[in-house]
Amino acid sequence: MRTTNPFDDDKLREECAIFGVYGSEDAAAHAALGLHALQHRGQEGTGIVTYDEAGDQFHAHRDNGHVGDVFGDPAIMKTLVGGSAIGHNRYSTTGDTMRRNVQPLFADFEFGGLALAHNGNLTNALTLRDELVRAGSIFHSTTDTEVIVHLMATSQGSVVKRLVQTLRRVEGAYSLVLLTRKKLIGVRDPMGVRPLVLGRIRDAYVLASETAGLDILGADYVRDVEPGEMIVISADGLETLFPFEKRPSRFCVFEYIYFSRPDSIFDGRSVYDARRQIGAELAREAPVEVDVIVPIPDSGVPSAVGYAAAAGVPFEFGIIRNHYVGRTFIEPTDEIRHLGVKLKHNANRAHLEGKRVVLVDDSIVRGTTSRKIVEMVRAAGATEVHLRIASPPTTHSCFYGVDTPERGKLLAAQNTIAEMAALIGCDSLAFISMDGLYRAMGADSRNPQAPHFCDACFSGEYPIALTDRDAAGRPQRQLSLLRDAG
Amino acid sequence: MRTTNPFDDDKLREECAIFGVYGSEDAAAHAALGLHALQHRGQEGTGIVTYDEAGDQFHAHRDNGHVGDVFGDPAIMKTLVGGSAIGHNRYSTTGDTMRRNVQPLFADFEFGGLALAHNGNLTNALTLRDELVRAGSIFHSTTDTEVIVHLMATSQGSVVKRLVQTLRRVEGAYSLVLLTRKKLIGVRDPMGVRPLVLGRIRDAYVLASETAGLDILGADYVRDVEPGEMIVISADGLETLFPFEKRPSRFCVFEYIYFSRPDSIFDGRSVYDARRQIGAELAREAPVEVDVIVPIPDSGVPSAVGYAAAAGVPFEFGIIRNHYVGRTFIEPTDEIRHLGVKLKHNANRAHLEGKRVVLVDDSIVRGTTSRKIVEMVRAAGATEVHLRIASPPTTHSCFYGVDTPERGKLLAAQNTIAEMAALIGCDSLAFISMDGLYRAMGADSRNPQAPHFCDACFSGEYPIALTDRDAAGRPQRQLSLLRDAG
Amino acid sequence: MRTTNPFDDDKLREECAIFGVYGSEDAAAHAALGLHALQHRGQEGTGIVTYDEAGDQFHAHRDNGHVGDVFGDPAIMKTLVGGSAIGHNRYSTTGDTMRRNVQPLFADFEFGGLALAHNGNLTNALTLRDELVRAGSIFHSTTDTEVIVHLMATSQGSVVKRLVQTLRRVEGAYSLVLLTRKKLIGVRDPMGVRPLVLGRIRDAYVLASETAGLDILGADYVRDVEPGEMIVISADGLETLFPFEKRPSRFCVFEYIYFSRPDSIFDGRSVYDARRQIGAELAREAPVEVDVIVPIPDSGVPSAVGYAAAAGVPFEFGIIRNHYVGRTFIEPTDEIRHLGVKLKHNANRAHLEGKRVVLVDDSIVRGTTSRKIVEMVRAAGATEVHLRIASPPTTHSCFYGVDTPERGKLLAAQNTIAEMAALIGCDSLAFISMDGLYRAMGADSRNPQAPHFCDACFSGEYPIALTDRDAAGRPQRQLSLLRDAG
Amino acid sequence: MRTTNPFDDDKLREECAIFGVYGSEDAAAHAALGLHALQHRGQEGTGIVTYDEAGDQFHAHRDNGHVGDVFGDPAIMKTLVGGSAIGHNRYSTTGDTMRRNVQPLFADFEFGGLALAHNGNLTNALTLRDELVRAGSIFHSTTDTEVIVHLMATSQGSVVKRLVQTLRRVEGAYSLVLLTRKKLIGVRDPMGVRPLVLGRIRDAYVLASETAGLDILGADYVRDVEPGEMIVISADGLETLFPFEKRPSRFCVFEYIYFSRPDSIFDGRSVYDARRQIGAELAREAPVEVDVIVPIPDSGVPSAVGYAAAAGVPFEFGIIRNHYVGRTFIEPTDEIRHLGVKLKHNANRAHLEGKRVVLVDDSIVRGTTSRKIVEMVRAAGATEVHLRIASPPTTHSCFYGVDTPERGKLLAAQNTIAEMAALIGCDSLAFISMDGLYRAMGADSRNPQAPHFCDACFSGEYPIALTDRDAAGRPQRQLSLLRDAG
Repeated sequence: MRTTNPFDDDKLREECAIFGVYGSEDAAAHAALGLHALQHRGQEGTGIVTYDEAGDQFHAHRDNGHVGDVFGDPAIMKTLVGGSAIGHNRYSTTGDTMRRNVQPLFADFEFGGLALAHNGNLTNALTLRDELVRAGSIFHSTTDTEVIVHLMATSQGSVVKRLVQTLRRVEGAYSLVLLTRKKLIGVRDPMGVRPLVLGRIRDAYVLASETAGLDILGADYVRDVEPGEMIVISADGLETLFPFEKRPSRFCVFEYIYFSRPDSIFDGRSVYDARRQIGAELAREAPVEVDVIVPIPDSGVPSAVGYAAAAGVPFEFGIIRNHYVGRTFIEPTDEIRHLGVKLKHNANRAHLEGKRVVLVDDSIVRGTTSRKIVEMVRAAGATEVHLRIASPPTTHSCFYGVDTPERGKLLAAQNTIAEMAALIGCDSLAFISMDGLYRAMGADSRNPQAPHFCDACFSGEYPIALTDRDAAGRPQRQLSLLRDAG
Repeated sequence: MRTTNPFDDDKLREECAIFGVYGSEDAAAHAALGLHALQHRGQEGTGIVTYDEAGDQFHAHRDNGHVGDVFGDPAIMKTLVGGSAIGHNRYSTTGDTMRRNVQPLFADFEFGGLALAHNGNLTNALTLRDELVRAGSIFHSTTDTEVIVHLMATSQGSVVKRLVQTLRRVEGAYSLVLLTRKKLIGVRDPMGVRPLVLGRIRDAYVLASETAGLDILGADYVRDVEPGEMIVISADGLETLFPFEKRPSRFCVFEYIYFSRPDSIFDGRSVYDARRQIGAELAREAPVEVDVIVPIPDSGVPSAVGYAAAAGVPFEFGIIRNHYVGRTFIEPTDEIRHLGVKLKHNANRAHLEGKRVVLVDDSIVRGTTSRKIVEMVRAAGATEVHLRIASPPTTHSCFYGVDTPERGKLLAAQNTIAEMAALIGCDSLAFISMDGLYRAMGADSRNPQAPHFCDACFSGEYPIALTDRDAAGRPQRQLSLLRDAG
Repeated sequence: MRTTNPFDDDKLREECAIFGVYGSEDAAAHAALGLHALQHRGQEGTGIVTYDEAGDQFHAHRDNGHVGDVFGDPAIMKTLVGGSAIGHNRYSTTGDTMRRNVQPLFADFEFGGLALAHNGNLTNALTLRDELVRAGSIFHSTTDTEVIVHLMATSQGSVVKRLVQTLRRVEGAYSLVLLTRKKLIGVRDPMGVRPLVLGRIRDAYVLASETAGLDILGADYVRDVEPGEMIVISADGLETLFPFEKRPSRFCVFEYIYFSRPDSIFDGRSVYDARRQIGAELAREAPVEVDVIVPIPDSGVPSAVGYAAAAGVPFEFGIIRNHYVGRTFIEPTDEIRHLGVKLKHNANRAHLEGKRVVLVDDSIVRGTTSRKIVEMVRAAGATEVHLRIASPPTTHSCFYGVDTPERGKLLAAQNTIAEMAALIGCDSLAFISMDGLYRAMGADSRNPQAPHFCDACFSGEYPIALTDRDAAGRPQRQLSLLRDAG
Repeated sequence: MRTTNPFDDDKLREECAIFGVYGSEDAAAHAALGLHALQHRGQEGTGIVTYDEAGDQFHAHRDNGHVGDVFGDPAIMKTLVGGSAIGHNRYSTTGDTMRRNVQPLFADFEFGGLALAHNGNLTNALTLRDELVRAGSIFHSTTDTEVIVHLMATSQGSVVKRLVQTLRRVEGAYSLVLLTRKKLIGVRDPMGVRPLVLGRIRDAYVLASETAGLDILGADYVRDVEPGEMIVISADGLETLFPFEKRPSRFCVFEYIYFSRPDSIFDGRSVYDARRQIGAELAREAPVEVDVIVPIPDSGVPSAVGYAAAAGVPFEFGIIRNHYVGRTFIEPTDEIRHLGVKLKHNANRAHLEGKRVVLVDDSIVRGTTSRKIVEMVRAAGATEVHLRIASPPTTHSCFYGVDTPERGKLLAAQNTIAEMAALIGCDSLAFISMDGLYRAMGADSRNPQAPHFCDACFSGEYPIALTDRDAAGRPQRQLSLLRDAG
């Protein structure tokens, strides 16, 4: 059962959250809270593995569903004994929606147990998988992540040595947390595409995809784990390693634009503030004379606040969002599919009727929702509807851990801006420029030596090789011969 | 199982939504959509009854849970055949969380089947129930609503005649929809405490608690059903009756302040706009020199927009809300209970640090959440925290269909404003005055002949007799001797 | 969901078990055990209501499913506090398989709560229901039993007085148990069609449909409640009343033939022994020279033991039964339907091959299973297959609480014995004669003054009027206009 | 959740059934039926894997529960496309009751997919597992069976070559079925401890643990797979291999005594008939003058029939069994535990009172049930109670795939026969002798060259090395560091 609703499919989707804690009195509760705060990064499944030093036993609970449902049963929580834990929220980019794909993965090694959770996507996973299978490895899941576990199993030496050997062979974007009997390990890929932050609460260390996962615990934000950094936490304290060749940093700019919570902070930069600045820059780049600035909620709100302040035009909630959109709502009949957007949004006629309106959104993927919202705003009596987008046109798929449609379904990959405006039915359409985006981020898009981001979805410049893909970007092998019925 | 979460209990709760449609080709889908749009009025259970003219058969589905879950199964929807339907979302004010309390109620009468759904609360239900039981009626549910069904059953004549006889005997606040083989009936109590609006989509008539329940269908808002009006819809069209003695209108002002969706409209007045005006009036009544106006989301947002515009101070989302709060989240251990508020809210440090802040909320019930939010905002670095409330102090319980704590647990019933400020820990606290509230609503609190509201929760002036209650406001009889296990 | 399997439909089905206990320290556990022992009388749903004197509260749990499943959860059992209880197993004869039809029924009366459970069928229920609805009663279930509750509600005086008034108005077959705050009441209809026995365990009284429901508790069998007797158990002990005009006893002979457990005893007569005697009588009436006597398990076993002993021919289990027949087994495709009988029975080739065989069964309803079993026994190598039936031909439907097909589907109603033998494919077919049956029971079929039974399913002589039925035996009114979806 | 009931624990338990079919039009339905017929061999979980040649895809469904429940949903059955299938019923001897232990196991190999199901127990699995883990294999389940899959994965060559290499390394008792894209393989261990039979239905081949799994389909029983034989079925027909050194046959004699269905046949010998002969032999070895022979149902029935016929004493069902024993029945309170046995058995007083009785059972494990049944039979009025057991005393644990208590809990391991009689409370107790048992089976216990059985549970002579066990018979390693919560 898909747990997301069919009308929400006009956004890119983050694939995962990861979380780790070491030295806590209540590691499982901390993990559940942290994962709850990171629920937006993956709603399909969730899992926690703890290690109980007293009983020398790992404990796990992993299931499809939301954190509050999977870990809402106190009887379950009581079984998750131990002072260290890692956890994961899943949104599938590779692998089906099967329970056996829910992370953290776990394996018994010669040296004892190992649990692992991954945010990102490995771009040579299928190639490595073929090689491992030929040598006798048996894959249980269809996730790219399992490749890491098998590479470690067939490596030699300590956990850290095996992990370094392994990561030198994988390509792609990854932030990982690993748990053994003695250690909690966190690591980011050499370019730091996906986020991972370090926190502290009393004597315990915490690793989380975003600072929002620290705040919910009352943990202090210490710093971001650096690109290519491996942090090893044990009874001896925190040790840091840089086992990879130095490469330029390429943090995913879409984390600032849409994926992350507005209250999260990366590299000292507030996500909310970044969005607000992009909105302000957009107001400067694409001004228009209107009566009111209206966000498309929720993701367009911070940019719209920035746009309105910079433009000196009143900000109003001209569109109201219903947060109760059911997880398995009414099977879309044709009529309901047509009504679709209204399950989530409604026009606030009092602030649209007779007005010239700027709508602000974070991005356009397929454009289907944008078209319906513009139609709804016009039906509520707006005299002009101008659409402003707080990111450049999304023209390319992401292969680094984000669920994007094939290129052919990306509106901006197939159409000029004028064509897009016509399809959407707005009076004008403007995207922020790549330069403007970097400017708003305090960076320089022309200078790759200056702080730079992964912007492949806008530019098509993929910083990491796409080994498993053919020229058309399609994967080259069926992932498993087995299909589970239920 | 309670489906709401333990950290949300610092708000009053609306009890119900009702919906009806007649003459539609897809009555059940319309009802499900309408109820989904009204989910905020009741999340405990939901039900739909349709009438299939061809098969001369009523069809029902009623269960605990959200609309999207209860009606998410297409196989269920397919059974709900027919061209007319009524539906209900339940939040229990009377009666336990039992499945047998989920509405619409249904009964076989001499003349055929009758389904009924109710928003409100009858204040003489226990008294009437005793009388009915003595005469041989057997109650199946523990809801006050069932009294209406039994009174109708023991009345004589047509459905409309029986309904009029019945409603002349009940006291309290009610909006009702009823469905028979031939008719859809909607009625509001003589003072019009609870809302009910009339809409039209193609040839079909629609009745809904709020206009948001019309908008989702693309139905047109025709008008509000008037206080004391009974609307009878049949193959002969729409007929209107005023079977009660004329009484002054007393629409619940809290519908404007908190209960209803901001995109709903009552009597031509936008709820969003009303909140915005209250915020503006509050800025005038209780100004303070600050750097930023921050809403407590989501309910404080429209008032904060109004306050900020009137005060000329920047508006920012200094508090971010997580909408994924699980329905049955982690059993609150002491530590988690302490963290409590963070499950739902997080400080947006970038816009609070070093700032003087006005927080705007719609109301204060127990004050526990307010205290934690003020503490969180201070911890994020705010130098001053001023709390502004867009309603007068809530000093009295509601007995007209809203779930309020006993008076003893209402913060404003036990403390002066200065004491409340001290308990909450803010630098200043102000509520809008009763005069200010009426002014913002375009009314006059001193003139009961002018448009007036039920404001009993602020004033203690109850416009309808509380027959079932003793002097202390406690009910006088155990509702049922039976307790169901599962 | 039907909980019985589609291949078991070639037997008549008993509709219900009832159970009551008063003065026990663990009334709910006793009820669950008693109902478990009586599971064969109804597998569709089960329920228990207890009365907790200390808390002045009735507790209930009722659900679809088997006793071991519905009451297998200790958390449920713990809620069923109290020293007295009644319970019910349901197999629907009237009313759908809906949860709201699961008994015991419960109602709040002027004098307090009343719970009631019923085994049997009222033959004027629809007629009375119409009358009650006209007077204002609202029916919640579609069971005939609810008529009794409404008649009591609209009667006057004490529980016993109301019950007597009520039962004087109903026609049909019934054994009832009722529970109030002070009393446990058991009653059988004036002709005693359905069974009810009285037991004692320590200080507690027990009422059960069969003695097997006493044995499981270790309770002593005191005696059968007599036809027309009402037993009232309270703190004052046991009181007995005979409120009806004296009528001749007509206990259902099919209870001895098939419905009841072989270890149960009615009127001092062992059910196993009765079946064994019928088998012996059948051997005398319809002898045949064969090598082996084989029962069709399980219901044919005791008669086959009796037949073999009387005939002096070896008894062998030539057919083996698989007791794991799933409750919701594989949707019968045509192929599987054909295999059908093998889900439950398999030939034991070693004792059939080359043998002349007598198969013994208790009765023939549609004959479909008999035909398949004969075919299977032949395929296993039997040289002759003779079928002997330990009851007279079933030619008429039962309207006294047993689920029988319409007459048109009863093989014996449409065919001569020779035609039946041809259809079934056996070498010879014989039923015990009515005289032989009575003789085996120690009675005389020609003398209605002597101990007599209800044998309407064989004779068509219905001892109680069939008021609700038309000449063709069809009910005259739709039971409810409402159909529940799930 | 344990799905068996706590009062049934006084029997040894078979661990598994396996089933395979190749060349069928409806392989999944055949597998479901076959597994249903073999439900008695394992009730904890069940699974089917099919291979769909058209789609080049394996399909699986595996879950805890009975066959009729797990495969009762037609929507599930429809997904199991394909012309070949294997299946498994599980009763855990090693590994927890976890869903991930439910078989068939599946793995992607270099050459494609492989599914495998196992009945038996490997006695060097832990030793091999350690070795495999050291070399980099990652185990997913805690079953011994997974060792086979990993050994195959790290072998070289074709499936058959890998399987032969693998089986030459494992020790223990096993019957296996394997499914690949092209082949169905069945194999029995060199001594043939566990059963496997070959059948044919139209053009399809069938493999099943017992002939009862063929009969239900209407398939013909061709022959038993021989000890040490490997059968390979493909489009080229059936090929047979004997890849192991020849060893003496040691079929489990307990399959005849208790495990298998009475209608099954091994090596041309009927299980029912074997039991009947043992009963007859027992009558000769341990006669006693009584009035009636009574089986303890169901397992004692065939031996009792044999005993009664040989002794010339009437056979009667003096104990009645209730087949509705719930799968998760009422949590045994002390009182109910005491009543325990009555959940399943009741005395048939009419045939016990005043009688001298021989009770016949198949075996004694702990003896707790025997004691309660003797007590119950005495309470029903029997004047003498003699217990006759149709197997020798069970003095040793089984390590070849049967769930036996530790030796310390086996009544016969700790007590003389006189002591056992005293503990059980019977007037006399006799077991069949080992010689008598072999004689009844048409074999000679003194001559190991003659047809011989594995009788380790009676003799302590284990024919296969117990490599993983220490001297006390305890396993030497924790199977997994991971414990799953739910």
